[in-house]
Amino acid sequence: MAESIDFYFDFSSPYGYFASLKIDELAERFDRAVNWRPIMIGTAFKASGNQPLVHQPLKGEYSRHDWDRLGRFMQVPWRFPSRFPVGALAPSRAFWWLNQGDPTLAVRFAQAVFLAYFGQDRDISDAAVTAEIGEGLGIDRAAMLEAVQMPEWKQRLKDETEAAIAGGVFGSPFIVVDGEAFWGADRLWMVKKWLERGGW
Amino acid sequence: MAESIDFYFDFSSPYGYFASLKIDELAERFDRAVNWRPIMIGTAFKASGNQPLVHQPLKGEYSRHDWDRLGRFMQVPWRFPSRFPVGALAPSRAFWWLNQGDPTLAVRFAQAVFLAYFGQDRDISDAAVTAEIGEGLGIDRAAMLEAVQMPEWKQRLKDETEAAIAGGVFGSPFIVVDGEAFWGADRLWMVKKWLERGGW
Repeated sequence: MAESIDFYFDFSSPYGYFASLKIDELAERFDRAVNWRPIMIGTAFKASGNQPLVHQPLKGEYSRHDWDRLGRFMQVPWRFPSRFPVGALAPSRAFWWLNQGDPTLAVRFAQAVFLAYFGQDRDISDAAVTAEIGEGLGIDRAAMLEAVQMPEWKQRLKDETEAAIAGGVFGSPFIVVDGEAFWGADRLWMVKKWLERGGW
Repeated sequence: MAESIDFYFDFSSPYGYFASLKIDELAERFDRAVNWRPIMIGTAFKASGNQPLVHQPLKGEYSRHDWDRLGRFMQVPWRFPSRFPVGALAPSRAFWWLNQGDPTLAVRFAQAVFLAYFGQDRDISDAAVTAEIGEGLGIDRAAMLEAVQMPEWKQRLKDETEAAIAGGVFGSPFIVVDGEAFWGADRLWMVKKWLERGGW
């Protein structure tokens, strides 16, 4: 199997959510695995001088409208969360904790977190909610609550975020295929072309 | 014929250039006309708190790479201009001047300006260069040089820019179809779907 695809995202990113619904199927068509990589995009925004979309005049309103439009177009669960954006520390640390032992379970957990936040309006910044989402997948609640407070997983998330920024990641989603970077849910078509042709 | 499509752009915008190469053909398939609408995107950036892409850390480098990649993918003339970005006052005023009498000629002029800047590295902020581009289309050089200094066309460009911002335009390209806004060269696929379905 060829090199894996890196899929960087923040759990609080609507475009990250929309891309998450398509990335695995796309990669599979080209016999590629996907490394899901949750990071704290706020830290990347500090590095790039960027701001969350909803805090930007004009662009914020446009984005709100665009997410609703994309949700309808893709016919996927979507409702704009009551609290937005949130700092998704708990589920991001929990992901890296799970990923160590069982990457497949970690991805299922990530999908469940996205769905809880953008489909069911649950507050994923709350560690208790994160643990409940894990419980739904058979993950021990107490173990997850402990893991998200452990220095090891706090540090891991920081390290992953710093490494992503050092590698040029500045937004969510951000997809890297054989060293080639693609920013945004809008660029899945280009990822596909890149995989088909091996570049151009 | 159904309502025209508004195509807002800045002559100094690479993504505006890439979209300009496709918008007319796309619109024609749905029996729609396109109103080309050059504006000064810097003024819109002030309203939205945005910055030119190349002035943003990380995102600037990414964009440079992405434009080269898009140019190769689309197999269209592309070279990153020696002077970038520029304030494209002269060709923008000239466009609105031409548009008053002959909108078709104005579009041909706009296409030639884009090509001169992004295909041939000519400095379109220079009124003399703008006039030369016009001459290539049989437009009187002296008349154009005069027009770009006339208060009427200076004001027209300001008015068009202000009206665009008031209508929610914050980037280039920005496309409005039956009141629905689409931002970015990446969204032509969505414009197409919108035209096909009449919304969703």
